[in-house]
Amino acid sequence: MEIKQQPKSAPYLYLQIAARIEKQIMSEVLKAGDKLPSVRMLCRELGHNMSTVTQAYYELESRSLIETRPRSGYYVSVPPKKRLAVPGTSNPSAEATLHNQDDLITRVHKDSENPNVTLLSLGVPDKSLLPIAKLNKGMLQAMRTLDGSGTAYDHVQGNDKLRREIAKWSLSWGGDLDDTDIITTSGCMNAVAYCLHALTKPGDTVAVESPAYFGILQLTQTMGLNVLELPTNATTGIELEALKKALTQNKIKVCLLISNFNNPCGASMPNEHKKEVVKLLEHFNVPLIEDDLYGDLYFGSNRPTTCKTYDESGMVLYCNSISKTLAPGYRVGWVAPGKFKDQVLRLKLSHSISSTTITSEVVADFLKNGRYENHLRKIRQILHNNSMKYSRAIANYFPESTCVSRPEGGYFLWVELDKDINTLDLYERAIKHNISIAPGRMFSLKQQFDNCLRLSFGLPWSDELEKKIKLLGILINKG
Amino acid sequence: MEIKQQPKSAPYLYLQIAARIEKQIMSEVLKAGDKLPSVRMLCRELGHNMSTVTQAYYELESRSLIETRPRSGYYVSVPPKKRLAVPGTSNPSAEATLHNQDDLITRVHKDSENPNVTLLSLGVPDKSLLPIAKLNKGMLQAMRTLDGSGTAYDHVQGNDKLRREIAKWSLSWGGDLDDTDIITTSGCMNAVAYCLHALTKPGDTVAVESPAYFGILQLTQTMGLNVLELPTNATTGIELEALKKALTQNKIKVCLLISNFNNPCGASMPNEHKKEVVKLLEHFNVPLIEDDLYGDLYFGSNRPTTCKTYDESGMVLYCNSISKTLAPGYRVGWVAPGKFKDQVLRLKLSHSISSTTITSEVVADFLKNGRYENHLRKIRQILHNNSMKYSRAIANYFPESTCVSRPEGGYFLWVELDKDINTLDLYERAIKHNISIAPGRMFSLKQQFDNCLRLSFGLPWSDELEKKIKLLGILINKG
Repeated sequence: MEIKQQPKSAPYLYLQIAARIEKQIMSEVLKAGDKLPSVRMLCRELGHNMSTVTQAYYELESRSLIETRPRSGYYVSVPPKKRLAVPGTSNPSAEATLHNQDDLITRVHKDSENPNVTLLSLGVPDKSLLPIAKLNKGMLQAMRTLDGSGTAYDHVQGNDKLRREIAKWSLSWGGDLDDTDIITTSGCMNAVAYCLHALTKPGDTVAVESPAYFGILQLTQTMGLNVLELPTNATTGIELEALKKALTQNKIKVCLLISNFNNPCGASMPNEHKKEVVKLLEHFNVPLIEDDLYGDLYFGSNRPTTCKTYDESGMVLYCNSISKTLAPGYRVGWVAPGKFKDQVLRLKLSHSISSTTITSEVVADFLKNGRYENHLRKIRQILHNNSMKYSRAIANYFPESTCVSRPEGGYFLWVELDKDINTLDLYERAIKHNISIAPGRMFSLKQQFDNCLRLSFGLPWSDELEKKIKLLGILINKG
Repeated sequence: MEIKQQPKSAPYLYLQIAARIEKQIMSEVLKAGDKLPSVRMLCRELGHNMSTVTQAYYELESRSLIETRPRSGYYVSVPPKKRLAVPGTSNPSAEATLHNQDDLITRVHKDSENPNVTLLSLGVPDKSLLPIAKLNKGMLQAMRTLDGSGTAYDHVQGNDKLRREIAKWSLSWGGDLDDTDIITTSGCMNAVAYCLHALTKPGDTVAVESPAYFGILQLTQTMGLNVLELPTNATTGIELEALKKALTQNKIKVCLLISNFNNPCGASMPNEHKKEVVKLLEHFNVPLIEDDLYGDLYFGSNRPTTCKTYDESGMVLYCNSISKTLAPGYRVGWVAPGKFKDQVLRLKLSHSISSTTITSEVVADFLKNGRYENHLRKIRQILHNNSMKYSRAIANYFPESTCVSRPEGGYFLWVELDKDINTLDLYERAIKHNISIAPGRMFSLKQQFDNCLRLSFGLPWSDELEKKIKLLGILINKG
């Protein structure tokens, strides 16, 4: 293999190296299954250091162009046998009857507690993705630093240092929060719950994406809210025309969106859509609860913006947490409720007094010392890699008519099967083989998405996992 | 001083020794201000071991019969100059206008964040009351034991071990919970909030004690509930006749009581009252949310029962936490919601997914290893001691017409001053001297209790503290 050093347009050396190898793969100079030179050998040949070449290989791996084989090295990937279509825009049933999916959701949660089950159903980061040793060091540090070692109540609004760090972090998505704008919560759902309580009373209507995250649907049901499920594109998120129509026709009290790499489709709203949604909602005086839980997990080169980025009137209540990136069990989340801050703060005080002191401090330090940023780089790389590998396996083993979303971040693939395949039946058959999936039915209050399923790619890729996806494919073909 | 060893009726040796010293004090063989023999000397004389004699002295000290002077030893206490009356039964205003006390409560909370302020206002355990070193050891242990060191989500219902330990602990109040009855929460208020959400919708009426804990009043207001404040005795709690009348006349949806050492009066319902309340509510089919946050902090020899002890139909939703005994900042609480378990569990799942994993584990271990029981013995002793000393100082420095409650546990003294003294004014004058009190007005939604205040005795006793109470007395007399 010959890679000459010439000036290229790519901004970094590792991207230049990757581009050249990619060119050789595309022109079939390097063929599927060919072994690549070892990192060491390439370093010697090119006169680069190890980390540059390693990064180039990572880049190619994350794009599924090459793959590692344990104790053997890097090989040119065998491309998927077929390329699947992407699902289009949902067309939520207009039928009014509600079908509470509580029993199904409880069932899926219950089955997931069996340690033998391969968990493709839930968006929980695998232990291997989390910086546990570093967090434990942070815990020791927090015990030493905190007055009373974290036994005392925290301020109602939340740990001061954490709020400052979150404010600084908001620069990454084009925000300009300051610490007084932020209230800490017990995870992101807790933030969303306070926002909904602040803005609605039973009988009010909340507009959401469709399909929608089942946790949000459950929350609206426990609160006695009506839900308006709006057409949503599997790539670009909520349909603006549909939202506009709904705002004109309905009495929407509040809108709730997962703007980046959403759950379950993986869709991300383009910047123009975000701007437009904020403008629309402002015009109709409808607040937006924005759940940005997956925003830091982008596979591309830039952190996507948020709706909050374009919010000038304080109508956007921005919710986030570290549950998908750092430590779900820490229960550290936050909300920047814009002009609804007083109401949300009063709700937090009356519902739980304060957040857990020590885990807030650990997360604050993690952000402050740049460890969060380092960690995110790693977890993004792994999730990107996983997404490509899971997608390829689906392309190889699922029927050709399957559509699968192509998320540019986050945890989820949304899979649409033939209309005659029922994923509730598939769930029953898969769980017998200790595979747990999330049937489409979970993501609506109306009986729909019966031929769809959500797959999480949070589990590390392995031959074993590939076999599970292959088995799912066989079960689908048999159905 | 002569104490002969003779058989006595007291069950323990230390109580026998204490009884004999008490007899000598009462008969003025030992006079006010007399120095008692040192523990060491008494041991030698009586042939008992140190711990027995020390315990006897602790017993006498907790009953304010004797007192320590730093680096000097034990002395017979100087009795208070006067004995104050106990407040009677409240007569809540029938006036319907609501007066939201949010601003006042926010003000008191805000002032309390100033580290120079002597915090007599809030029922927060002082750092010196908490077993911080042992909890830190527990934290290290939990990081080693827990899969993922506590980074993973806990089960929705809560840490299994913690729920088992709480179930075992229920034996202490005559309960017979099992682990499946219990759901963990983020502190006791969080448990109460889930219960209220499970049982009410906006516009429903909740019956509470009067005066009532302001946190409960705030919670009902954020939820749009009506509150019925019922006459409450400062010693025996809610008046049964008034409750019965209200149940007959009003549409009460749920009743919410702090049954033991309540906040703010320190009142405890006698067993017969507890039985009767449960019978009454069962008859009217009205659920009871029981907040037992202070139940473990009894000054007598026995743990009081709870209403849940007498609940046979599952109508009582029992709430508790370790925030007043172990570590408020850990946010570990629980609820045994009786027959409303499914609703409460669904609310917890949809509002916060799960509890903080690591702090739950630390508390579970603390209970399991008997450290909680040991710790409670110490904190009860200190609080009992404090309550006597605070009471005596109030008797010495406040006007003779003052009434003060005589709680048999918990954190609070309820003080009734002359009708013409306004404790809102007193608050303003006291805070200028860096003393924070809780004005009576905070404990009602109707403008009442203006001549009352709540004093917390959670701060360790000291000469400095006595001066603060003396100063409060001077400010009252000047008012």
